[in-house]
Amino acid sequence: MNMKIAIVGIALLAGLPAFAQTNQPVVEDFKPSALNQSGKQYPAVNSERRVRTHIVASQATNVLLDISAVKYPLTKGADGAWIGESGPQDEGFHYYQIWVDGLAAPDPGSMFFYGASRWGSGVEVPAHDQDFYAMKSVPHGEIRQVLFYSKSASTNLRCFVYTPPDYEKNSSTRYPVLYLQHGGGEDETGWGSQGHAGLIMDNLIAEGKANPFIVVMASSYIPGASMGGRGPAPAAQPGAAATNAPAGGGGFNFNFSAFEHVLLDDLIPYVDGNFRTFPDQPHRAMAGLSMGGMQTHNITLAHLDTFSHIGIFSGGSIGTNEITDLTAFKQKVKLVFIGYGSREIEPGARRGGGRGGVGGDPKLNAEALKAAGVNCHFYVSPQTAHEWLTWRRSFYEFAPLLFRD
Amino acid sequence: MNMKIAIVGIALLAGLPAFAQTNQPVVEDFKPSALNQSGKQYPAVNSERRVRTHIVASQATNVLLDISAVKYPLTKGADGAWIGESGPQDEGFHYYQIWVDGLAAPDPGSMFFYGASRWGSGVEVPAHDQDFYAMKSVPHGEIRQVLFYSKSASTNLRCFVYTPPDYEKNSSTRYPVLYLQHGGGEDETGWGSQGHAGLIMDNLIAEGKANPFIVVMASSYIPGASMGGRGPAPAAQPGAAATNAPAGGGGFNFNFSAFEHVLLDDLIPYVDGNFRTFPDQPHRAMAGLSMGGMQTHNITLAHLDTFSHIGIFSGGSIGTNEITDLTAFKQKVKLVFIGYGSREIEPGARRGGGRGGVGGDPKLNAEALKAAGVNCHFYVSPQTAHEWLTWRRSFYEFAPLLFRD
Repeated sequence: MNMKIAIVGIALLAGLPAFAQTNQPVVEDFKPSALNQSGKQYPAVNSERRVRTHIVASQATNVLLDISAVKYPLTKGADGAWIGESGPQDEGFHYYQIWVDGLAAPDPGSMFFYGASRWGSGVEVPAHDQDFYAMKSVPHGEIRQVLFYSKSASTNLRCFVYTPPDYEKNSSTRYPVLYLQHGGGEDETGWGSQGHAGLIMDNLIAEGKANPFIVVMASSYIPGASMGGRGPAPAAQPGAAATNAPAGGGGFNFNFSAFEHVLLDDLIPYVDGNFRTFPDQPHRAMAGLSMGGMQTHNITLAHLDTFSHIGIFSGGSIGTNEITDLTAFKQKVKLVFIGYGSREIEPGARRGGGRGGVGGDPKLNAEALKAAGVNCHFYVSPQTAHEWLTWRRSFYEFAPLLFRD
Repeated sequence: MNMKIAIVGIALLAGLPAFAQTNQPVVEDFKPSALNQSGKQYPAVNSERRVRTHIVASQATNVLLDISAVKYPLTKGADGAWIGESGPQDEGFHYYQIWVDGLAAPDPGSMFFYGASRWGSGVEVPAHDQDFYAMKSVPHGEIRQVLFYSKSASTNLRCFVYTPPDYEKNSSTRYPVLYLQHGGGEDETGWGSQGHAGLIMDNLIAEGKANPFIVVMASSYIPGASMGGRGPAPAAQPGAAATNAPAGGGGFNFNFSAFEHVLLDDLIPYVDGNFRTFPDQPHRAMAGLSMGGMQTHNITLAHLDTFSHIGIFSGGSIGTNEITDLTAFKQKVKLVFIGYGSREIEPGARRGGGRGGVGGDPKLNAEALKAAGVNCHFYVSPQTAHEWLTWRRSFYEFAPLLFRD
């Protein structure tokens, strides 16, 4: 097949409203999703990784299951409820919604998660490696809701802080800190909920694979501040890394300066003042997914005296051309970790591979950093796209590399 | 009006499916509810305390707003969306849902809360006294998600723990503990979310009105255990207070023994082992709302060597006939607090006033306890029913009375 035609075909598909019929025979071994509301049988997932839902809407005429950018029509069953299933999904977590006579709503059977700029449904397609984020009988850390006052935003902001299992008992021990950011349209709840960051840390610590550290998860959407891609970009603020931000994947200018000020001027001082941290650069890391990865890129490169470990998940990479003083960079930066889902960087993918516009081809960039003597790791999550299983796995690979000195 | 006829009228109304039209002129000063999703204009509330919502459902033929047990039809507006408002509501928080062509769904404009045995919509009607649960620029405590292993349930269970603002800084200070329970169809998230227990504590502590203490909020629905009113009652367990439980308001036998075992055998030891508590009876309180109040009643009376302070909000009271040894009771119990919403105990109300079946008329019971020399407080929340503003206010009145010795 002519490659040019194939790519045009994908582009056309991506531009059209997607509808799909599932006429294939379906394997009848559906089990309720692990993320359902208590006692709910639907959504359910079968061994083909299809998602089936069951919607009670007796007077409706048009009910759809909308998942992974495809809308699947449901049909009215013998019990009067609407039922139907998607095509096979990738393993892992997917946001989705239902449409009932033109209403886009969460599925009342699922629990709700913040993504796509809304609280809505999520479904879990069991992954073959789900054990690494399973809840086990190991010591568990806490995830704490913390309210801190932001001078730069003139308001109280919320973040979540993971403290490792031994934090309360070792009352004189100090810990390093990772600042871990969500993606676009998500918020500070994502990593602790659908990201399972707490369970991943608990399991890694129990197996002796990661050193215990604190994880701080804040929202990068600051009240009163506009952000590129969601509205007019605010005037660049002096000294903010965001003034040098590259164009984002959608062609918008991302401007992260409001969050950068909150992080550096308010949040880090609060955390260092209220938790038993090592309050210095060698014990401070930043990572994020998608937009959070771009923020990590911009903010860490502008503040290498603040952060020593850098993690970018599905959010670009660092090119050697961005490093002005390689000797100083190698002295300060103990780790650069770049993660992607395989479907993001495979041929024809719309993300990664340099086409995201953030710093060029991530694999080539990682190899160049390694060749230049930087401790750089490149990770590819098998058979996943721009979704949470990519980021759970990236975090699981990243965490053991932190604070090893 | 003949009182008998009026009461029959209310009973008839309560027994019928409720539909209502709002033909009255509506004051056009609606403001978005404080609990809306980011950027959402609806639901909105006006100065008459009507709730208006705005539902995009272009192909729908029947859209209803379902709040406080009344269904209000919406009408299709000029923009193609469905719009309409409720009658005036009481001040405070209300669970609600929408109906779209037979689908009962959360309103996509609101944030979601767990109540009525589901995650669904909530709306906040501003209360004249809302300042006591407002987020202010005062030191804030943390609300921590804690996973603890339950031997009796053979699984990890989740609870939330409020620690006061100075907890992390005063690393040698110990604190008393309140165990605070949700109501029927709710869970461990309720008090920290729609209950605003953390903000109420922060404000009371900042004003010097309450002594700092830890608040533990667990779910009383134990996986694998059935509970009276939701299914067959489990066999009574030896030594469990629940074997003496009175009949609940709905005529079901409530059986709380599974939770009682988790609380006494697993949760209290976990909290005393992992937080800086005073692990003794004088520094341990229990309170709860509705079903949680009935649990508090049963569990504290059966374990007076474990709890010294008792709070029952809209969940019954304690009759002097339930106290076998008054001298011992007065020695052990430093506080009995009974709270109700005024609409629960006014003439004709279906709850409180002895008609709930839990221990008789709460006001008379409180007076009898006081006359017997027990430190008993009776509180009535003005103009509220069996809803969260009653319980926020009850908690605000109760907390300053705790651990004063």
